[in-house]
Amino acid sequence: MLSFENDYICGAHERILQRLMETNREPLTGYGNDPYCESAREKIRAALNCPEADIYFLSGGTQTNATVIDALLDKYEGVVAADTGHISTHEAGAIEATGHKVLTLPQHEGRIAAGELKSLLESFYQDENHEHMVFPGMVYLSHPTEYGTLYTHAELEEISAICRAHDIPLYLDGARLGYALMSYHTDITLPDIARLCDAFYIGGTKVGALCGEAVVFTGHCTPKHFLTIVKQHGALLAKGWLPGVQFDTLFTDGLYFQISRHAIDMAELLKKGLHEKGYTFYLESPTNQQFLLLRDEEVERLKKQVAFSFWEKPDAEHTVVRFATSWSTTKEDIAQLMQIL
Amino acid sequence: MLSFENDYICGAHERILQRLMETNREPLTGYGNDPYCESAREKIRAALNCPEADIYFLSGGTQTNATVIDALLDKYEGVVAADTGHISTHEAGAIEATGHKVLTLPQHEGRIAAGELKSLLESFYQDENHEHMVFPGMVYLSHPTEYGTLYTHAELEEISAICRAHDIPLYLDGARLGYALMSYHTDITLPDIARLCDAFYIGGTKVGALCGEAVVFTGHCTPKHFLTIVKQHGALLAKGWLPGVQFDTLFTDGLYFQISRHAIDMAELLKKGLHEKGYTFYLESPTNQQFLLLRDEEVERLKKQVAFSFWEKPDAEHTVVRFATSWSTTKEDIAQLMQIL
Amino acid sequence: MLSFENDYICGAHERILQRLMETNREPLTGYGNDPYCESAREKIRAALNCPEADIYFLSGGTQTNATVIDALLDKYEGVVAADTGHISTHEAGAIEATGHKVLTLPQHEGRIAAGELKSLLESFYQDENHEHMVFPGMVYLSHPTEYGTLYTHAELEEISAICRAHDIPLYLDGARLGYALMSYHTDITLPDIARLCDAFYIGGTKVGALCGEAVVFTGHCTPKHFLTIVKQHGALLAKGWLPGVQFDTLFTDGLYFQISRHAIDMAELLKKGLHEKGYTFYLESPTNQQFLLLRDEEVERLKKQVAFSFWEKPDAEHTVVRFATSWSTTKEDIAQLMQIL
Amino acid sequence: MLSFENDYICGAHERILQRLMETNREPLTGYGNDPYCESAREKIRAALNCPEADIYFLSGGTQTNATVIDALLDKYEGVVAADTGHISTHEAGAIEATGHKVLTLPQHEGRIAAGELKSLLESFYQDENHEHMVFPGMVYLSHPTEYGTLYTHAELEEISAICRAHDIPLYLDGARLGYALMSYHTDITLPDIARLCDAFYIGGTKVGALCGEAVVFTGHCTPKHFLTIVKQHGALLAKGWLPGVQFDTLFTDGLYFQISRHAIDMAELLKKGLHEKGYTFYLESPTNQQFLLLRDEEVERLKKQVAFSFWEKPDAEHTVVRFATSWSTTKEDIAQLMQIL
Repeated sequence: MLSFENDYICGAHERILQRLMETNREPLTGYGNDPYCESAREKIRAALNCPEADIYFLSGGTQTNATVIDALLDKYEGVVAADTGHISTHEAGAIEATGHKVLTLPQHEGRIAAGELKSLLESFYQDENHEHMVFPGMVYLSHPTEYGTLYTHAELEEISAICRAHDIPLYLDGARLGYALMSYHTDITLPDIARLCDAFYIGGTKVGALCGEAVVFTGHCTPKHFLTIVKQHGALLAKGWLPGVQFDTLFTDGLYFQISRHAIDMAELLKKGLHEKGYTFYLESPTNQQFLLLRDEEVERLKKQVAFSFWEKPDAEHTVVRFATSWSTTKEDIAQLMQIL
Repeated sequence: MLSFENDYICGAHERILQRLMETNREPLTGYGNDPYCESAREKIRAALNCPEADIYFLSGGTQTNATVIDALLDKYEGVVAADTGHISTHEAGAIEATGHKVLTLPQHEGRIAAGELKSLLESFYQDENHEHMVFPGMVYLSHPTEYGTLYTHAELEEISAICRAHDIPLYLDGARLGYALMSYHTDITLPDIARLCDAFYIGGTKVGALCGEAVVFTGHCTPKHFLTIVKQHGALLAKGWLPGVQFDTLFTDGLYFQISRHAIDMAELLKKGLHEKGYTFYLESPTNQQFLLLRDEEVERLKKQVAFSFWEKPDAEHTVVRFATSWSTTKEDIAQLMQIL
Repeated sequence: MLSFENDYICGAHERILQRLMETNREPLTGYGNDPYCESAREKIRAALNCPEADIYFLSGGTQTNATVIDALLDKYEGVVAADTGHISTHEAGAIEATGHKVLTLPQHEGRIAAGELKSLLESFYQDENHEHMVFPGMVYLSHPTEYGTLYTHAELEEISAICRAHDIPLYLDGARLGYALMSYHTDITLPDIARLCDAFYIGGTKVGALCGEAVVFTGHCTPKHFLTIVKQHGALLAKGWLPGVQFDTLFTDGLYFQISRHAIDMAELLKKGLHEKGYTFYLESPTNQQFLLLRDEEVERLKKQVAFSFWEKPDAEHTVVRFATSWSTTKEDIAQLMQIL
Repeated sequence: MLSFENDYICGAHERILQRLMETNREPLTGYGNDPYCESAREKIRAALNCPEADIYFLSGGTQTNATVIDALLDKYEGVVAADTGHISTHEAGAIEATGHKVLTLPQHEGRIAAGELKSLLESFYQDENHEHMVFPGMVYLSHPTEYGTLYTHAELEEISAICRAHDIPLYLDGARLGYALMSYHTDITLPDIARLCDAFYIGGTKVGALCGEAVVFTGHCTPKHFLTIVKQHGALLAKGWLPGVQFDTLFTDGLYFQISRHAIDMAELLKKGLHEKGYTFYLESPTNQQFLLLRDEEVERLKKQVAFSFWEKPDAEHTVVRFATSWSTTKEDIAQLMQIL
């Protein structure tokens, strides 16, 4: 069935499968110590313009968030995030399971506001009882956010400056980072992210890989013995080259950026079509996720012909749904959807 | 110095110290298996009108909350609480340290609203993604709340009914329970609490004991091997009779209720005096904690002569402060405070 | 370089890669709800002769152990394992990170002894202080063990009976299960394991898959909301069909058993060759891992031409090393090794 | 009934109760910020000959061990202890509940051997797989041990030197420290302990206090924001002066040492009597705990007249039992016991 359910409905870009085939019978050592991981690291460092970056490959987003956040926080610290942040809502308490609180800020179309972050940090230290409270020990952003929205360069600069003024790391969840970087409406580059964040990950699972996320520490805060921490979190792949070969391929000849741009092109085509058909957007994003407000009958009718995601029920007669494009979406998929709509 | 800083500024009611003296050289077995603990349990069961109650003695509030909540929740569950609940704010992440999320509801003068609780529970199960989220596994109330406010009998009934409809335990933090029960403005009795809650604690530390909280499971949900869980939380007192003798004394001849009523009488005297002097209440509660809105100069002047608590800074010129009475407050204290004001 | 370093030096059996290619562009729903996972589950249930089995796919061994053990244990319980068990030594404290103790028994070539298990369980409950101790809440076996050794059917029966008498689950780590089942020297079948254990996993990573382990609960003890627990452990794959397609292929036409048998055949060839060359075995196992005692000079010489694993240093002049065969080992590899030796 | 069950069968030394009476109505600020805590800290620092020591008061032993160990360890580290150490056996998994493994060494009458510790640390770093293992991050000793035995000054020096060579803290559990310091057979003083250990606690609960343990960091490794960590562990007493007044009293005019010596004198009297009566010692210790090997009939007969502790069952006809003296044991108690025996 035609599907816009999410950006991980298909396997991997064919060039990746091809490389996995080619390298399949080469005996390789485990745990990320193979030459493909090393080559992928070098290519990513170049793309980041950050030669000192420490890079590790994990297999999924929740796992990556929980492992990195636990590794960066001290025992008495929590992580500041938007109340709609993935770690706040849809990770089944994975952060709390490692012993740390998620300290929430109000979301603004999925983003946190620099001013509100500043306030939270300042008022924490002004509070005479703060030693009885969870210390804000780092900041979590998702970019794109869970609503497909983006921070501007100015916003990211400001948030980064606040974190540095308070000497706490800024961590960016880049599960869909390619779609942010290739948006028609962004002024943030990958080197900007490496410069302004202390840790982040470049998502593979949602951007053309079978599985895998590339965790980057930009050189200031790599946790001591991070490999052991990764192992302790059950996140150390025996066949470390599985993400290694994939990221090596994604960062060869700009594949990561090309396929991300393709998804954006498809999203723009989708938005255009939806506007022409007069659909009501709940939130029209500059990336690959679009949120529509549909009448419940329409939802029932559509879901027989196309897969999409339930988002929320704002009232008794309407539903917010999400349509996502991805590296695997084709022009034909969009055309077919337009016929159905 | 004269102090209204909180309700735990003095040692213990003298009758308690007397009993500790009298029993001091009796060899007793440890961990709560002594006759004083057993006698205290019997007296508490009678006061609760709940002969099947299981009762344990722990030493402090945060410890009790963390131990009981961890014991009652399954691994995939969190606890629902007001965003101003003690566990949400002032326990340094003790709940999260046991692996569980605190799921917050908006506070209304410290209370949660039954309707909002119902909504949260219902919408959780309606959400198609709820298996990726933290399950609401129990409800936490504080009574009195952190603002000294009280639930009504009708509110508690309604919250209890919602919990039972969803088959999750209702837990009440009674750190200051005596002051709730003896308020001039309450319709809730101790047997009501035993009937409507599944677990709660009767606070000793803030109501006349040196230390100690009596945890009550009303017979439906005592966690298996709770003693071992208490030990694992570092909360099992070797000299278990230390809280045992204290609670035995507090529940002999109604001492717990008398000294609680005394604190309430002192609070009413305090409120009357403050009104007469024209002070602005930030929140005037029916229990022993009163919150005033003072100009910062006034705060500076007062704190040289009397101890009270900083609460929050609503704007650049004012501060909210708390004055608390307790079992140890005297009429002379109130009179002296009135002279200072 | 020629490698006998471990059994995860190569990618995946080509039939698996072929299936991943074929299904690559089929839009599939996530988190294990796709038809390939369902088909794999059905085929595994048939192979187990256990139609009521609940089956989940995770991505790696340590992750699987930590998730399953945490899910099966109550808060006051620990897991009993051999002191050389993988969870006791080489998982970086992943079990303890979930809050549970590993209670160790002496190993006998990697195995626990039924009699010693019985003793541990009985003496625990006889100990008057046991409420202050960690309760033995389940038993962990690895089969093959970390030394490549195997339990006999009689031993597994006996251990299973002891667990059932004490009403605690028996969990078997089958990271290399194929190599146990296809050993020339075993009397245990896959249906035996399903009948005698309460939970176990069928290893994919070390037996021909790119990644993936199939967790089986045989119907008596599937933890409530296990999917949420998997997510909380960061172990829920977005592209759930990645292990699904792999296990579906492995359990089609007996591929899992064929490639396991091939590894065993290669191991027997290896053992024969080593004996002929007069090498000293530290431990000669009936499965795919063989442990040799070598002089240090010999180790230095060999490691220039062939990869193998360091195991331990028994004295100043010798080293124990491990040679492992796998589904990917060829006769040519063995022949080449023999030339080097 | 006459009791030698343990060293916490009675309340507190009367001078302590007296001081609690005298200070009972003084309004004091909470959480250890009162003048009695400060005075107690000064007196302890003087007794330690360690003016830079950081001192905190907690309420019980398991709580103290779990809080200090969790605070001192990094996430990837565990604590090395004797396999009979209190944290290894009788704390219900409190250490593991904080996420850390207890790495055990064989016990020698309750002690660890310096040579075996050195070996463990060295072989850990020599192991090529050590990044997959729990790092030994600190060393735990109990002194006296769980068998009442003592380290010599030379042994403690050696263990301390090993820890310092590996840059890991040495922590000493002094639940019964007074009885070690006042033994007739020791060459270790309190300043020695402050000099050779990095952290330790001076036990109050078992040495004359109602409750309370004084945690000492000797200035090299006090964990950042330890107060918040204490709170997070549920171990921060609201009435911080409760242990403060007690330790202030214990360290005034050498009371702690006098009452400890008294317990030792009583133990020596007990040992003498037991020898005269021809009893078989399972372990005769230089401190206040004595272990006898009794026939089961003798156990049955005795326990009707005197309380003591079950220790273990070495065979079907005998039981090892413990008799403990304490600050509260009198000559009359010993005489009465001798009559019963």
